[in-house]
Amino acid sequence: MKVNGKNYRTVWMNNNSVFMIEQNLLPFQFEIFEAKTYLQTAKAIKEMLVRGAGALGTAAGFAMAQAFLQAPKTKFWKFIQKAKKEIEATRPTAQNLFYATNKVFQDAKEAQDPVGTAIKSAQEIADKDAEDSRRIGEFGNDLIKNGYRILTHCNAGWLAFTDFGTALSPIYLAHRTGKKIFVWADETRPRSQGARLTAWELGNENIPHKIIPDNAAAHLMQNGEIDMIIVGADRIAANGDVANKIGTLEKAICAQVFDIPFYIAAPTSTIDLACSRGKNIPIEERDPEEILFQTGIDELGKEQKILVCSPNSEAYNPAFDVTPAKFISGIITEKGIKIPDKENWYE
Amino acid sequence: MKVNGKNYRTVWMNNNSVFMIEQNLLPFQFEIFEAKTYLQTAKAIKEMLVRGAGALGTAAGFAMAQAFLQAPKTKFWKFIQKAKKEIEATRPTAQNLFYATNKVFQDAKEAQDPVGTAIKSAQEIADKDAEDSRRIGEFGNDLIKNGYRILTHCNAGWLAFTDFGTALSPIYLAHRTGKKIFVWADETRPRSQGARLTAWELGNENIPHKIIPDNAAAHLMQNGEIDMIIVGADRIAANGDVANKIGTLEKAICAQVFDIPFYIAAPTSTIDLACSRGKNIPIEERDPEEILFQTGIDELGKEQKILVCSPNSEAYNPAFDVTPAKFISGIITEKGIKIPDKENWYE
Repeated sequence: MKVNGKNYRTVWMNNNSVFMIEQNLLPFQFEIFEAKTYLQTAKAIKEMLVRGAGALGTAAGFAMAQAFLQAPKTKFWKFIQKAKKEIEATRPTAQNLFYATNKVFQDAKEAQDPVGTAIKSAQEIADKDAEDSRRIGEFGNDLIKNGYRILTHCNAGWLAFTDFGTALSPIYLAHRTGKKIFVWADETRPRSQGARLTAWELGNENIPHKIIPDNAAAHLMQNGEIDMIIVGADRIAANGDVANKIGTLEKAICAQVFDIPFYIAAPTSTIDLACSRGKNIPIEERDPEEILFQTGIDELGKEQKILVCSPNSEAYNPAFDVTPAKFISGIITEKGIKIPDKENWYE
Repeated sequence: MKVNGKNYRTVWMNNNSVFMIEQNLLPFQFEIFEAKTYLQTAKAIKEMLVRGAGALGTAAGFAMAQAFLQAPKTKFWKFIQKAKKEIEATRPTAQNLFYATNKVFQDAKEAQDPVGTAIKSAQEIADKDAEDSRRIGEFGNDLIKNGYRILTHCNAGWLAFTDFGTALSPIYLAHRTGKKIFVWADETRPRSQGARLTAWELGNENIPHKIIPDNAAAHLMQNGEIDMIIVGADRIAANGDVANKIGTLEKAICAQVFDIPFYIAAPTSTIDLACSRGKNIPIEERDPEEILFQTGIDELGKEQKILVCSPNSEAYNPAFDVTPAKFISGIITEKGIKIPDKENWYE
């Protein structure tokens, strides 16, 4: 997608280097980081220069390709095995990362040209991730009418994937196919991914949008200012319940009361058939400091961290919530739109 | 209520001075401001050292009493008339302020001792405001069971009134009468009155509480962590619809879905019988800067204002929303609890 008018992916490989957008600096600075070795790429993954399920898979695949390029002729496979473990240790809970390291390893292991095959395999992972996101956008675009005002929560944009994203992909394709659309971006406290990343992405694609406090969504729904809601998903249970960023549940409930379509956009890899229902999804509790303090830039562009709450109070910071399937109009995947069976999916 | 273990009202008069808590400095600093003249009190009102319906009435009444004390024997009533206009010009949309200036003026005008009567009249306004809040607390306390975990939104605490407050008054009385309670304080973006003022009040009264992002309320309701919700009101229409801080509507809708009692606490003076329904209440749109920037203190305790959003994006900042009466379990007033007639009150 576009940044300052030029097309980018979040992560890409050129010659022996892996390049990535330095996401820790967004939305205040745009910089490209070049990792010349697999260890530099692994370090960048660990330090979250790149984040999000799809983008992590792509970065890990490219890191493996770099390991193959760097491996000495003697002890070649020993070097690769060690590198694979180092890459996997960077973000040990990211499923896409393990999928990518294993795929590149297996493809290369069986090949006559392991190095060339590893590079090709890594590129295929990147391209498939981008293509899946684009297909989510195409299916989702079919739901968007000209003039729609769409609400989204958090950032399920291209920065979390290789390109296009999930919740924002239908919005990008609607815009590209000439539909006039407007986006309300929930601020998404406490980490403000909506106000920072979603707004930044939309601004760079020249899509009209405004940031709203999370508190304002129901008011806009009540006043007929929202035609549709699309959000991403962190995990989808077999019964259609969806775990996503905290606050998603409130939007889904209000959407049903005001009769507004509420869609989830996610690749089918997000559906966890081993998880029967939402209640079984553990909810990560994060550091209360994310609520008590805020980071941003001062007048001089210098990053500051300030206390924004009553000094002696504590905070509670659940990172996700679970939206029962009965509040969801449909799940937009790369294979089409799945409508949760409202009778059977929810209990 | 208590601050650092000592009892305070928000505004009080002693000899010829009006004292008030410097609310612009909260929650980071606690200071008392002394206004020696009616003009100093008026300036403090204008600069929002004191805010909130009840507290503004009390402060304006005391400012009038100061004017009577300062008035020269010759041109006595001319001086008073001029002072009254100056006091009323400070916050021209605050109804309680006009009620107070008019009451003190009328009481003193008909009296043999205008100065003494003005001081007595102003003190009566302060005492009645505190007593009304205390009665709201008593009626509300009847609804609170031992062990209750109560959610509140924004700050309808004693800082907005002379003492006790509205939504927090039942909580204070429950605590004083020995009930074990816990409060979830919604952060209440964008101005964070919950994280700043409500949390500060509760901390000073030693009431167990935690700040949550506004996004987390429905998640807590879904998980059985909230037994009751109490919020304040800015204006109540004749049909029972309630205008209150943005985000109130989302909490009320979610409360109904999860079958949690949702109460409004407000003096009967908040009920506007001339306003037939919530749709007729105009919603104030505030400066988008309140969303784009955040204020707080840095490590050294110095106040800072930082940009927290994508630099080139705009924001939309409605200050209030309207909760239809059908989502409200009852309105706790100083005269008892009014249950909106769900058939007739809502359309």
